[in-house]
This record gives sequence, C-alpha cells and structure tokens, in this order.
Amino acid sequence: MRGVIMHGPGDVRVEERDDPTIVDPTDAIIRLAATCICGSDLWPYRGADPVDHATMGHEYVGVVEEVGAEVRTVKPGDFVVGSFVISDGTCEICRAGYPSSCVHRIFVDGAIGTQAEKARIPFADGTLVATPGQPDPDLIPHLLAASDVLGTGWFAAVAAQAGPGKTVAVVGDGAVGLMGVLAAKQLGAERIIAMSRHKDRQDLARHFGATDIVEERGDAGVARIKELTDGLGAHSVIEAVGTQESMVQAISSARPGGNVGFVGVTHDVELPGQLLFFSQVQILGGPAPVRRFLPELIDLIWRRQIDPGKVFDLTLPLEQAADGYKAMDERRATKVLLTL
Amino acid sequence: MRGVIMHGPGDVRVEERDDPTIVDPTDAIIRLAATCICGSDLWPYRGADPVDHATMGHEYVGVVEEVGAEVRTVKPGDFVVGSFVISDGTCEICRAGYPSSCVHRIFVDGAIGTQAEKARIPFADGTLVATPGQPDPDLIPHLLAASDVLGTGWFAAVAAQAGPGKTVAVVGDGAVGLMGVLAAKQLGAERIIAMSRHKDRQDLARHFGATDIVEERGDAGVARIKELTDGLGAHSVIEAVGTQESMVQAISSARPGGNVGFVGVTHDVELPGQLLFFSQVQILGGPAPVRRFLPELIDLIWRRQIDPGKVFDLTLPLEQAADGYKAMDERRATKVLLTL
Repeated sequence: MRGVIMHGPGDVRVEERDDPTIVDPTDAIIRLAATCICGSDLWPYRGADPVDHATMGHEYVGVVEEVGAEVRTVKPGDFVVGSFVISDGTCEICRAGYPSSCVHRIFVDGAIGTQAEKARIPFADGTLVATPGQPDPDLIPHLLAASDVLGTGWFAAVAAQAGPGKTVAVVGDGAVGLMGVLAAKQLGAERIIAMSRHKDRQDLARHFGATDIVEERGDAGVARIKELTDGLGAHSVIEAVGTQESMVQAISSARPGGNVGFVGVTHDVELPGQLLFFSQVQILGGPAPVRRFLPELIDLIWRRQIDPGKVFDLTLPLEQAADGYKAMDERRATKVLLTL
Repeated sequence: MRGVIMHGPGDVRVEERDDPTIVDPTDAIIRLAATCICGSDLWPYRGADPVDHATMGHEYVGVVEEVGAEVRTVKPGDFVVGSFVISDGTCEICRAGYPSSCVHRIFVDGAIGTQAEKARIPFADGTLVATPGQPDPDLIPHLLAASDVLGTGWFAAVAAQAGPGKTVAVVGDGAVGLMGVLAAKQLGAERIIAMSRHKDRQDLARHFGATDIVEERGDAGVARIKELTDGLGAHSVIEAVGTQESMVQAISSARPGGNVGFVGVTHDVELPGQLLFFSQVQILGGPAPVRRFLPELIDLIWRRQIDPGKVFDLTLPLEQAADGYKAMDERRATKVLLTL
C-alpha cells in the first residue's frame, strides 16, 4: 500500500509500505476513505520535534476490512471514525471518560500513521465508532474532523464548562480553536468571543457561532475580554495554541471560579504559581478524550446539525501529501484533507 | 485596645491601638473571643515577605458589639465566625461561590489584623455568619478553626472533588492539610492517604480520618501513591504546602481525569506545561472561599460532628503573642490559639 513517510524535517514522501495485518484479536484493519494533515505534524516538519523516517498521520475515517476474533462492535463493511489515541475502552481511566489517558494508550501518530491507504487499529472496540450506515460523500470531511480537531475543540469546550448563560472566550484561531467555537455554540453558550486577527478565520468563527471578535493579543487581549465582561473575565476560556503567552492569556481572561480548557500541545510553558493561585481559575486539558464524544459528534454530523469539515480549505490526493505539508507550513492552508 | 504589631521580621509586640469604629454602614465591630496565629504569618516573621509595623491576624470569632445602619444578618450580641477575606456577598463572583475573589475583597491580614481585642469587619453581611446561640466555651477553638484552616482544608477537598468512592491523597501535614483530611472524611471519601513523617501529625491525621500514611516525599511519594492505587494515582489530591516540589508531587499523584485542590500559598512555583498537559488532571486552588462553607461548618461544629480545634496545640493569652510566634517558628507548635 501507499503511505506517507517523513524522512526528516521538510522531507515528506509517499512510498510503498507493507499492508497491515491483524496482529492481536482486538485489532481491526481499515481501508481509509480520507485522512488529513494536522497542525501538530508541522512540529517535526519544521524540525521542532525530532523525526526520522516516521509514518505520519493520526486522523482517519474508513471502511473496516477485517477484524480480530475478539472485536465485537465493528465488523467488515462498517464505516468507522476513530480517535487519534488508541484506547482499550475497558480500563478504569477509559470508563471514567479519559480514554486518551488509557492505561494501554497508543498515539496513532508514529506508531500507526494513518496518512496511508490502510491502517491497523488496535483495541478496535475501544477506539472506533461505526456510523449508522455508509455516509453520503459530502459527510466524509465532517466525520474526518471528528477524529481529532472537532473532538479536541469539543473537549476544550467541555473542560472549560461552556454552556447556557456562559460567556466563552477562545484563544487561538486555528482549526482546533474554530472547532472550540462550534462546540461552545452547540453546548449552548450565550456569548462566544473568538480571538483572531485574520479575516478568513474571523468569518469562519462567525459561521461556527462566534458572537464577538477580539483582535488584540496578550495583555491587550485580556483587557478587551474584561471590558466585554463587566470587568470580570469570561466564564469559560478555550486555549488552543500551547505557548506561554496563550496559556497566560487564557488563564488571565477567565473570571475567578471560571474554567480554562487547554488543548494546545504545550511547548516551553512554565505557569507561574501565583497566577494560578490568585486567578482562582479551574484548569483542565491534555490530549482530548475524543472517543468519549464520538457517538454524540457522529450523531450531530449525521443529522447535519454541524459542519466541522469546513475547516478543510485544501483537498489533495494522498500522493500529493508533500504539497499539503508545504501549503500548511507556508500558511496557505489551515488544514489539508487527503483523499484516497 | 491591645493588639499585635509586627515591627519587623522576628519582632512581634502587643501594643495599645485605637479602638475600631463604624466607618461604613455595612461595617460591624466585634469583640474577639479568640484569635490565632497562622502558618502564613511566619512568612513575614521569617523575612520571606516584607513587613513594617503591620497589624497581624486574619482568623477570628467573637461577639458583635455594634453594626452599621445597613447590616441585616448579624446584630449586637450575636456570636459570629468570619472569613479571612472580607467579601460583599452580592457581586457576581460572590454569588457564584467565590467570595474570596469578591470584586470588593479585602484580605483581613494587614488591613484589619484580628490578633487584637476588637476588629472592624467591613461588609459584615457578606463576611460574618452568626452561630445559633452563644457557644459553650469548649466549642470556641473549633469555631475559630472554621475562620481559615478548616474552611481552607474544606475548599481544597471540594476543589479536589473528594467524595464517596474516592481515594484522596493529602500533601502537607500542617494544620490545613490535617483539615483537608477531616474534610475528605466528612465528604465521604473511601480512602484518605495522609503524607506525613511526623508521628504526632500522623496520629492527628488518623484521628481526623486518614486510612493510610505515606512517609515518602517527592518522586518516592508519588510512586507510593501509585502503588496504593493500582498504578493509577489518587482520584483527588489536596495540596497544602505551596512549594514547587509539593505542587509537582500533588499533580503527579493524581490519576488522569482526577482533581487537585491546591491551597498552599504558592512561593516560587513554575508549573511545567507538559506536566499539566499529559497528567490530564484538573486543578483548582487559591484563597479559599471560606464564607461559602461557613454555615455548613458551623452546623457540623454546633452538632459536635467534627472537632477541628484539635489542631491547636498551644494556647496563650494575646499578651504573649510573641511567644506563640516563636513556638511556631521553632516548630514547637503546629498552631497557636490566643485567648482574650
């Protein structure tokens, strides 16, 4: 089969790889219907994370081709959506709603690499969810978004306790931040403030439910959020960047007793204890437990209540994956969908 | 009246001060029945925080002598317990349950100083709670504890979401940590692990409800907590120290999806973003919203369901406050009660 290999920073190639086969009785083999490139794939592409001939990709939807003897909830022919973290679905952590911290978790990235024609998915019952039937083709980008960016934005909104009567601020206007806006809207937030200085992303944020746009960043951004909230700060803040500035901005933008959900993978962040102490803000983040939300997200997409696939602004065939990485690296695309 | 003044580090004197008077119509003047010395008073005493002729003390119980024209819920003659933070009780933050972050908050420490015969308490309705009647003398230490250490330990346990079926670990065996043990027990925790290497405090922790004692600290302490919890970590962790080591230990001791309530005033803490991200632990802390809990705590004390006053292991008259500071500084006492 064909699949993406990142030989080193900036060097992405589509090459022949061995077809995956069932190894454990809890495995499933899926044939990808679509996959995509994640903002986090740019860390190694840009040399910020080490990389050496790695299989790439962790977002995926497709059709089950084969299952191991112990798989119960999906069968050959099913169309499935999977989480970017493999989870057994049975451990105490999974049962408590945190499959992304499963005691047997495997990050799909690197270990599996779903920028490929096929993939072996361990713990299929704990990781995959079948759609109610074969999806119309136009639903596929939306379902693919559920695999990571939508599920991650959703977790951030849930962690930030977005809901009716709440003002939600969203720090970060990348795909995950935009999905955070969509999630806050679905969860019933009264007011959603998207922080963005890019016209196209502001428009998309408004499409997904943003009621206000704030262009300022850092201390000025915090001051603007306070102005919009009677000096108190937002009830809920979604952090979808992962830098020191964005984390401090997010915590400082929330009111005492408020909540921050942070899902930007933190790089070089050191949070001052005094800020955490005196802000009296509750924070929760980390790799999103996407599998927890998949049944609900698939249902919303199936009933055409949400259109998260709009975050994909460039579609290329898998064979042109290198062009997709280049477009995202040069910020010509927010998120690239790869067809098969 | 007589009251404590800290002239400088290590220099505590009881001196004549002006009697307080009603200034605002929401004020109450109380005559103290008892007050005490807090672990946090040792920061300036030891020169770690600046101090220059400061009035000291923020824990207090006593009898109302006079109230301003707008005070509704307490009246002269009432025995009252107050929070260590003055709060208006009416702002949106107070109403959301975070009076310690009230938009009009005043820290009693320094601004008022309750190591004295009398005190003016602003926003009396939002800060004080009257007991059902005049307390028996033996109840006074317990009621005094509610003013800070009990309320703070209680908040930590609530923030850590201690409750039925939960395993709670407590980092810190000072008065607040011990109160966290008591709170976790009252909130129904199944298992309470106190981290302490001092025999007398271990005994007190067991008295308050600890089921297990762990003497190890740092990484070894974390490893021991994991051993006791099937490798997963505690559901809830109470942090009652405020150092880099104790914060990292607390977060690392909680399982993914678990909760840390931190109430040790943070000094020189910088939390690594990666630890917060990959631990997937929810954290909430800060100055405890004691006023939220006072009605419930007073009720438990009044019905003799809890005996938090046992944390006081030395009682001295106010005039000997300097001896009390010295005893705590030299660790000859955990917490000193001052009588009037």
